[in-house]
Amino acid sequence: MEYTNANSCGLTQFIGTAAGDTIGLVIANIDPGLHERMGIDQRFRSLGIIGARTGAGAQIMAVDEAVKGTNTKVLSIELPRDTKSGGGHGNLILIGAQDVTDARQAVETALRLTDVNAGELYISEAGHMEFQFTARAGEAFHMAFGAPVDKAFGFLCVCPAAIGLVVADIAVKSAGVEIVSYATPTKGTSHSNEVVTTISGEAEAVKQAVLAARKAAMELLCTMGPAPESPGVPYLD
Amino acid sequence: MEYTNANSCGLTQFIGTAAGDTIGLVIANIDPGLHERMGIDQRFRSLGIIGARTGAGAQIMAVDEAVKGTNTKVLSIELPRDTKSGGGHGNLILIGAQDVTDARQAVETALRLTDVNAGELYISEAGHMEFQFTARAGEAFHMAFGAPVDKAFGFLCVCPAAIGLVVADIAVKSAGVEIVSYATPTKGTSHSNEVVTTISGEAEAVKQAVLAARKAAMELLCTMGPAPESPGVPYLD
Amino acid sequence: MEYTNANSCGLTQFIGTAAGDTIGLVIANIDPGLHERMGIDQRFRSLGIIGARTGAGAQIMAVDEAVKGTNTKVLSIELPRDTKSGGGHGNLILIGAQDVTDARQAVETALRLTDVNAGELYISEAGHMEFQFTARAGEAFHMAFGAPVDKAFGFLCVCPAAIGLVVADIAVKSAGVEIVSYATPTKGTSHSNEVVTTISGEAEAVKQAVLAARKAAMELLCTMGPAPESPGVPYLD
Repeated sequence: MEYTNANSCGLTQFIGTAAGDTIGLVIANIDPGLHERMGIDQRFRSLGIIGARTGAGAQIMAVDEAVKGTNTKVLSIELPRDTKSGGGHGNLILIGAQDVTDARQAVETALRLTDVNAGELYISEAGHMEFQFTARAGEAFHMAFGAPVDKAFGFLCVCPAAIGLVVADIAVKSAGVEIVSYATPTKGTSHSNEVVTTISGEAEAVKQAVLAARKAAMELLCTMGPAPESPGVPYLD
Repeated sequence: MEYTNANSCGLTQFIGTAAGDTIGLVIANIDPGLHERMGIDQRFRSLGIIGARTGAGAQIMAVDEAVKGTNTKVLSIELPRDTKSGGGHGNLILIGAQDVTDARQAVETALRLTDVNAGELYISEAGHMEFQFTARAGEAFHMAFGAPVDKAFGFLCVCPAAIGLVVADIAVKSAGVEIVSYATPTKGTSHSNEVVTTISGEAEAVKQAVLAARKAAMELLCTMGPAPESPGVPYLD
Repeated sequence: MEYTNANSCGLTQFIGTAAGDTIGLVIANIDPGLHERMGIDQRFRSLGIIGARTGAGAQIMAVDEAVKGTNTKVLSIELPRDTKSGGGHGNLILIGAQDVTDARQAVETALRLTDVNAGELYISEAGHMEFQFTARAGEAFHMAFGAPVDKAFGFLCVCPAAIGLVVADIAVKSAGVEIVSYATPTKGTSHSNEVVTTISGEAEAVKQAVLAARKAAMELLCTMGPAPESPGVPYLD
């Protein structure tokens, strides 16, 4: 039972890892009995799997983009209560395909995009904040939050929840944006210490609302501890 | 995006911080669309917000006292599964007011009292314990646990849950106290590893029951790790 | 309020501690009012208590064995969202007896067996994995997972959940095993970042399936961080 840390391994199921304690995996041909138990669409025997300890928006948006224009489908998005010792979520996202090559390609793309998106995840000892913006939401954001497909979409998440509420108010007061979803510790989260707000509208308006929320969240989190840092490179400006 | 840690910030929403990783905030005039989504009493457009990563009793009791005799009302109390890497709760408490001055004052008082109450929160690597006692429960304790208003009230919470059960038994065997609520990992908590018991009765009886529970919890937690320490100054003797 | 760390304490309720941040306790004669609130079988006034911050399988299997052929009964098994800063569960297990001596003996045995079983719990900074195997499941495994009593039974649990799904697929593809239960972050867990799968069947087949899952889980967890380590001595080979 001795192994050394390695970013590769001999199992054909392993695709790779990414920021946010993320792993990408495939199952070429899921066991029929297990498939039935899983309660997912039975037409897809090949599964792509994105799972992470830390974050939700980065990975969901990565999958949202990765499945566009491919022969794959988002089957389920589950958000465990995780972020390691933090107050937020991890994730388990299943992608269905009829061919393992398609599943594998979707996972590879999703891992690459997770590294990009994790640039807008910021973590400190006191809490965390995550912001995502896309000009065109797809099926993953629709499944997870009810995002209107093909419209600009913004994701705003802050721990502790108190700060998340204040920045939600700031964001939704921006002209030209609508609230898509609003989740708190007891409604719509897995008891995380977050307020998670999503918005839709004109692309530029949504982006400006996200940036205003990010600025306020950063200032408020800094009153509780050291400045939150990103595991990646911020992509929103 | 560079900020330094600071206990103040330029946002008018920021009031201050307190023990237990607590932050106090206000929203002078909540966005109407967000207000509707929140599912809280719509009469109060100004919100006071107390939120924390660590603890529940200290902040709830602080708000319980802070709103007494003011033009504010406790709107909601949510307990996320948090305490950073611990096995307990954080909190998100909303206070409603028709005037932002009232909301601000309630939050200021609640922050000050949270620092006092956190004296009866004790944390070690092995777990934590929190005890609170008031001679006269108000609307926050009533909302959170069904406490009889204006009667003496005790709050007992220990992680791991096993110890919490033993000290609950010790407390409720005291003469002159009644069980108000009893919560475990699957009933009444957000899947925390705690037993949370609340009691009511004659003031001196409730206080003695809380002290007996605290003594036993401290002894038992010490068998699992170093002696739990308080972020404040114990106030019960 | 000064105490030093000690593996003993003066309280008659204290029995001992074990691996996985486990404590064993007894209540000789539970308070009748509390007993009623707890919603457990009222015939047993003496309670044995096993509670832990870390793990579920090790302690459940320990109790499963400890109550066999004794005058005790498993009353409830609760799985808080814990494992300290990890992504899994802790536990609170109640054992009922009509005589405190029986309760005490069951807890003593369960603590001893928890130390043994924790050998198949492996933890790293990246996640954890736990595997258990018994040739003959008893009432605790039946209560927790619906295990067929007196049949061979295997428990497979991995965090993050993505890896847990892959190893579930590997295990259930083994000849001669049947799926008993399958749990994910949103179904059957307390929002943990785990897939927990249990299997039943011929003893040797179940054991081989567990070993195959363990091997794959170890390889996959090593792609995300250092090799997971056990707090005990692995017992499956």
